[in-house]
Amino acid sequence: MAPDDPADPGMYDPGLSYTTVAQTNLSRLDAEAGELYVGGYPIEELAANASYEEAVSLLFEGRVPTADELQSFCDELADLRTIPGPVRELLRAVADSTDPMDALRMGLAAADLHTDPTTAAKRVAAVVPTIVATHWRLGRDEPVVEPDADLGHVANYLWMLTGERPTSERVDALETCCVTLLEHGLDASSFAARTAASTNADPISAATAAVGTIKGDRHAGRFADAFALLESARGADDIQRVLRDRTNDGLVPGFGHPVYQTRDPRAAVLSATLEQTAPETAAETIETIDRLDEAAQDVFEPEAEGQEQRPEVTVEFPATAVLDSLALPPALFAPTVAVARAGGWAAHILEEYSEPTLVRPSAAYVGEIKSDWTAVEDRYTAGDRLIARPPQSASLEPLTQTLDVLSEPNRLELLLALYDSQEPLAYSDLLAASTIDDKGQLNYHLRTLRGPFVADTDAGYRLTDTGERLIDAVLENDRLLDDDLSDDK
Amino acid sequence: MAPDDPADPGMYDPGLSYTTVAQTNLSRLDAEAGELYVGGYPIEELAANASYEEAVSLLFEGRVPTADELQSFCDELADLRTIPGPVRELLRAVADSTDPMDALRMGLAAADLHTDPTTAAKRVAAVVPTIVATHWRLGRDEPVVEPDADLGHVANYLWMLTGERPTSERVDALETCCVTLLEHGLDASSFAARTAASTNADPISAATAAVGTIKGDRHAGRFADAFALLESARGADDIQRVLRDRTNDGLVPGFGHPVYQTRDPRAAVLSATLEQTAPETAAETIETIDRLDEAAQDVFEPEAEGQEQRPEVTVEFPATAVLDSLALPPALFAPTVAVARAGGWAAHILEEYSEPTLVRPSAAYVGEIKSDWTAVEDRYTAGDRLIARPPQSASLEPLTQTLDVLSEPNRLELLLALYDSQEPLAYSDLLAASTIDDKGQLNYHLRTLRGPFVADTDAGYRLTDTGERLIDAVLENDRLLDDDLSDDK
Repeated sequence: MAPDDPADPGMYDPGLSYTTVAQTNLSRLDAEAGELYVGGYPIEELAANASYEEAVSLLFEGRVPTADELQSFCDELADLRTIPGPVRELLRAVADSTDPMDALRMGLAAADLHTDPTTAAKRVAAVVPTIVATHWRLGRDEPVVEPDADLGHVANYLWMLTGERPTSERVDALETCCVTLLEHGLDASSFAARTAASTNADPISAATAAVGTIKGDRHAGRFADAFALLESARGADDIQRVLRDRTNDGLVPGFGHPVYQTRDPRAAVLSATLEQTAPETAAETIETIDRLDEAAQDVFEPEAEGQEQRPEVTVEFPATAVLDSLALPPALFAPTVAVARAGGWAAHILEEYSEPTLVRPSAAYVGEIKSDWTAVEDRYTAGDRLIARPPQSASLEPLTQTLDVLSEPNRLELLLALYDSQEPLAYSDLLAASTIDDKGQLNYHLRTLRGPFVADTDAGYRLTDTGERLIDAVLENDRLLDDDLSDDK
Repeated sequence: MAPDDPADPGMYDPGLSYTTVAQTNLSRLDAEAGELYVGGYPIEELAANASYEEAVSLLFEGRVPTADELQSFCDELADLRTIPGPVRELLRAVADSTDPMDALRMGLAAADLHTDPTTAAKRVAAVVPTIVATHWRLGRDEPVVEPDADLGHVANYLWMLTGERPTSERVDALETCCVTLLEHGLDASSFAARTAASTNADPISAATAAVGTIKGDRHAGRFADAFALLESARGADDIQRVLRDRTNDGLVPGFGHPVYQTRDPRAAVLSATLEQTAPETAAETIETIDRLDEAAQDVFEPEAEGQEQRPEVTVEFPATAVLDSLALPPALFAPTVAVARAGGWAAHILEEYSEPTLVRPSAAYVGEIKSDWTAVEDRYTAGDRLIARPPQSASLEPLTQTLDVLSEPNRLELLLALYDSQEPLAYSDLLAASTIDDKGQLNYHLRTLRGPFVADTDAGYRLTDTGERLIDAVLENDRLLDDDLSDDK
């Protein structure tokens, strides 16, 4: 579908929401139907059945593993969990000053193993939980818990976070959560990973790009905000008001996934999980989400012209409710999304390597073209403008002879008004722009100025080149302005 | 120019070469004319006149600074050069095992200051040279050289690398090089930075994404390769052969910038610099580049259908020749490109913040849709295929009664050939696929199989469902295969 002519300027699509940039075997998002298939399976089926390792293996291999293959894959991931001593020392040094997502970026960036791409991609999935948990415990002055190769990926994450053997119920719930969030097409983070991989950069570099992208508060950084909104909506009488208070530039956490035109299909999956993890409060939470949804239909304007849809509920409310029910604090929401998504990043990186296409979009230049370089010692500012020091030529010699013209404040005022205007000014504009309110006065001053300083053209009054250069010179020398216009000296 | 209908699937543009994703005040690339404007100025003029700090300030502010503003900007950058102790310790720990670009990713990822975005963006430009130089010296067991606030940005980089006060000639040449490479629109690295910034991630995270992207050997990682090609071409008799030896998947370092349809305009700027830094060899180097260019016209096929242009010389040959003439080793070429580009990344990040548009492209799913989840204990592989354990139903009971049919190796061979084929096979195909070379034999076996196991359709022979399930079962049990087909047991 690319234009036939390479010189064609192509599409202007700043968010790339109209652009397909890859073919993928990893997932399919149906924006209109609100359906998600990961590794070919409906997300409902995958989340209900697959362990995290099984789902990651599915993405890596294009099919579910056999029992033997799964065991090997689990063993390999478990072997890749440990972080090197210097990385742990770095995490220790920044434990008190650094938030978890920054620590994850630091730790992952430093986790390079210099192995082959597939192992490095597995390393990404394996090491992210260790970095998050290590930094978390260091920041709370708790002893670091080493990864335990006897535990599965998700169980081990909970173990490293808490230092306690997690119940199978907790593991199952978090596993469902992680599989649900594992892969979601080209969200900004996965796309950043593929962009890096498209240059043939290594998987650790590409995944670090993804971590640096997902942390933003328009991405996984929103999860904690969504939870805060959910909490403040719980039991609130005026839920529309709660929503309005949270609306900022039309963006509200918990609403408006950039792809789905319906409710995010992952929301239902995790609402069902919530009924397992918080049986006593789940119904109320789900009702609160529905009330938020209802209120949103009144509060939100359609996002943009041409869009009929109002923002719909995303996965963020139920996902954060599940994480909260598992006693994960909001500071760990975004890192846990990264833990879940790391396997998806790894799969995207390997998929990009299989058929790399260097990503190289264009930007439309909207600035000026200049060609009058002025050496720094010849540059001065006048108000907000930068001007070059005028050439020291004869053209400025009349300056002294014309000082008396300028010594009349009204005349200087007129010249400055013309100088500030980008376009010629009509007589009425000049009258309005100056403090002169007598037309006779204005006519007199204009007559004095016209010729050398001001031109009277069909389009209106404008400064002559000499007039412009004169004002340049005047503005450069605040002294002149002070002498003539200011009283406080 | 975006389609009016949001449901429109839009463009398929994997490299985004037809897509404009931003409006920018930073630079303008004219692909056809082969012109580059940075901050509004022709690159020739900017590179010849601006210091690095001056050019970065131009990008940040949209205009060149006055002398006072420039001094403040230089002071601010100089204040932001130092790397924290823990980061230095990390660089020390990995000094021997890590290449310079990986070290830069690690160091930059850990350089967070938690300050306001503009300061953090300046921090990016300021700290990259320090990380590169610190790691470089640690890797060579040389004492780390602290940044010197009395030196300009580029002079200080040379100082930290070498521990010697650089001559003004070396500084000028490297400064020209850095200004020339400072900003180049949405190369993959700057685009990765903007993608991260579009989620409102911080400048250190976004610039780390850029570092992780630029290191690839289709990006700045190519510079050292280009230099190696230039060196092997120098004085070579058969320069076409030298080029052919370096052609890999149609990609040759030094050629084929993804944007320009002409010679990269930066090449001329740096060829002129080379005449300053290597007056005795510059002419020969430039002649070698021209000979490479000439040879390329014969060696290269046009890159893609519809493209008339053959790949043209990029900035890589002259840039690396300049860096070499300044005694920078090839291992420092990519890091020095990052040093140069860091100011551009910082400016892109700030520009993205000024009007953020979350980047969210699509991927087209090309895999299968499945809905038959099989528990892991019921999965088996047959050759390359994964199959579910067949249901323990009546449909398999005939297996024992049909073992005598299968005990004939030729018949099993025919069934396997049909099983492996995605499509029905013609009689002649079956004859060719089996070791049977007697048509009477083939007819006999086919008669035996036809009906329950093989169907004879208009399109050819194919397995019946029962036949397919039977072979599934057979393949699952290697034992059966061993018994029937293998002799070594």
